[in-house]
Amino acid sequence: MSEFDRRHFMKMTAVAGAATGLAGVGTTTAAAADGIVNGQVPGVYRYKIGDMQCASLHDGSRSFPLPDAFVTNVPKPDVLSAAEAAYMPKGMVTVPFNPQVIVTGGKRVLIDTGNGPGAFAATNGAVGQTSKNLVAAGLDPKSIDMVILSHFHPDHTNGLRNPDGSLVYPNAEILAPAKEWDFWMSEENAAKAKSSELMNSYFGNVKKTFAGIESRVNRYDWGKELAPGITSVAAPGHTPGHTAFVLSSGSSKVLLQSDVTNIPEFFLIHPDWHVTYDNDPDQAQATRHAFYDMAAAEKALVIGYHFPFPSIGHVEKAGTGYRLVPVAWNGSL
Amino acid sequence: MSEFDRRHFMKMTAVAGAATGLAGVGTTTAAAADGIVNGQVPGVYRYKIGDMQCASLHDGSRSFPLPDAFVTNVPKPDVLSAAEAAYMPKGMVTVPFNPQVIVTGGKRVLIDTGNGPGAFAATNGAVGQTSKNLVAAGLDPKSIDMVILSHFHPDHTNGLRNPDGSLVYPNAEILAPAKEWDFWMSEENAAKAKSSELMNSYFGNVKKTFAGIESRVNRYDWGKELAPGITSVAAPGHTPGHTAFVLSSGSSKVLLQSDVTNIPEFFLIHPDWHVTYDNDPDQAQATRHAFYDMAAAEKALVIGYHFPFPSIGHVEKAGTGYRLVPVAWNGSL
Repeated sequence: MSEFDRRHFMKMTAVAGAATGLAGVGTTTAAAADGIVNGQVPGVYRYKIGDMQCASLHDGSRSFPLPDAFVTNVPKPDVLSAAEAAYMPKGMVTVPFNPQVIVTGGKRVLIDTGNGPGAFAATNGAVGQTSKNLVAAGLDPKSIDMVILSHFHPDHTNGLRNPDGSLVYPNAEILAPAKEWDFWMSEENAAKAKSSELMNSYFGNVKKTFAGIESRVNRYDWGKELAPGITSVAAPGHTPGHTAFVLSSGSSKVLLQSDVTNIPEFFLIHPDWHVTYDNDPDQAQATRHAFYDMAAAEKALVIGYHFPFPSIGHVEKAGTGYRLVPVAWNGSL
Repeated sequence: MSEFDRRHFMKMTAVAGAATGLAGVGTTTAAAADGIVNGQVPGVYRYKIGDMQCASLHDGSRSFPLPDAFVTNVPKPDVLSAAEAAYMPKGMVTVPFNPQVIVTGGKRVLIDTGNGPGAFAATNGAVGQTSKNLVAAGLDPKSIDMVILSHFHPDHTNGLRNPDGSLVYPNAEILAPAKEWDFWMSEENAAKAKSSELMNSYFGNVKKTFAGIESRVNRYDWGKELAPGITSVAAPGHTPGHTAFVLSSGSSKVLLQSDVTNIPEFFLIHPDWHVTYDNDPDQAQATRHAFYDMAAAEKALVIGYHFPFPSIGHVEKAGTGYRLVPVAWNGSL
């Protein structure tokens, strides 16, 4: 066989392999002409907390031109500098999204749901990957027993529904923070929000998301164990009912911060910066300091919904803010 | 169906799914009793450099009690403090290993080979995962056209051979740094190394690795383009022939540092620390400063063999040393 023929043969063999036995590995089944399977490997990072089996599920990332008031209390050039310092594409900001799935005490619990299948279609797969990655982790969406929502922003709730309105997790109990429910379901609050395009869209999205399934939603208070080892923790400010979680099993404990900060490249380094999505920026800022001072003092692992995948790391004090030390990838769990 | 029966049924369904269609996703095919597939997802991170298709292949990680002279010129308590500051298990050090595969100009090129199938068996899969992860990336080991070795330490070369001595990449040309070859093949150097247990074991391993395949090995010089867009760069000190690489295509460029530093948690933060594996520590230190001053000035992406998977990031000046800013995971490449 000539050198050319050998290489050509080898390529064809690899393509055939990719189309059969390896089909499950990539995000697409087609091999690239030159051999490496197209697409990234599944955005699934498995980890354990005591007896809990867990996986970080990457919903994807959005990159968009930095909006003028993304950080409401800092001049835009300073924010652009922070983006550049984090090696983001020039003039852009990148925001990742990472729900978590936890198997605990025989229950399969999904915490937050990502941007949803509608966003998957609209963004050509950039976001809305959660249910696909859940399947890659070995779990049928139909087998999820419980969905816990941290708060009612669309990137956390819209994964509840398919574009046709059907439920992505049809057998799951849905748990929502009681304070969050009360805030967003109030017609009085919705009327007050009419002047803000962002808040108005949030109220509309909440209404649409829960329409017809109100009776499936159970409301929870802070300081409650919602499933074995999963306890809700007050973290208001980002939204009135915004909730963090303590995940604990045996002697192991991890803090799930939800949106105590948005991206760490801006708001962990600068905890006094206010992201445009914070409902009560001063309260959110106070919550950030309290949460991170505790996490840093305890040297606790922290999971951040908007941290880079796999979205787990230690947080420590650095200068006037904090620094994220991402966990080292464990390849043989 | 009762609530218990429903959950039980759902679990069984998911287990069956995991054992069939999803078998390729995990590192093992068995689903855990509670549902999440056992094992980590493949240690494969795909990226592009211009027209080059690339993947970082995680060979795995070793955690071991910190040896007394792991850093030869710093007191052990200071090194233990650095390990603790990096959240390593108490008294331990964790070293990851990450070969790269690059498809360029129709050639499939593997740069370094990991600890090898023998180590995979001996460590219960902790290291030696490279060829398995290569398959997960859609490439048959038989289809690799070229293996480029950065230097002759066992964690870089031992992936060339199966435990029975056969070649893991039987159709690949093997490229080795000429200076490295000359150093390790010298009987005079081997005789001088007899007094050092470490160096003696290195010489023995080199002899065993290349025995009978000497004629398959082509030696390369520094400053040469070894395959389209892959250029060798002098980086001596760690070993006499230790080589880094520039990977470039179009306007994109990435620096592959090989072992300019061992783990960044020690030797990037403290570039004047000497790892026990450095053959000429002063030369290695000078190489480190030159390499990183250039990388930081250029804001270049750097790939490090011993960086945490996916082993790619930016390096910037920080205090008296440097800091690694890991690349944000791109989930929709």
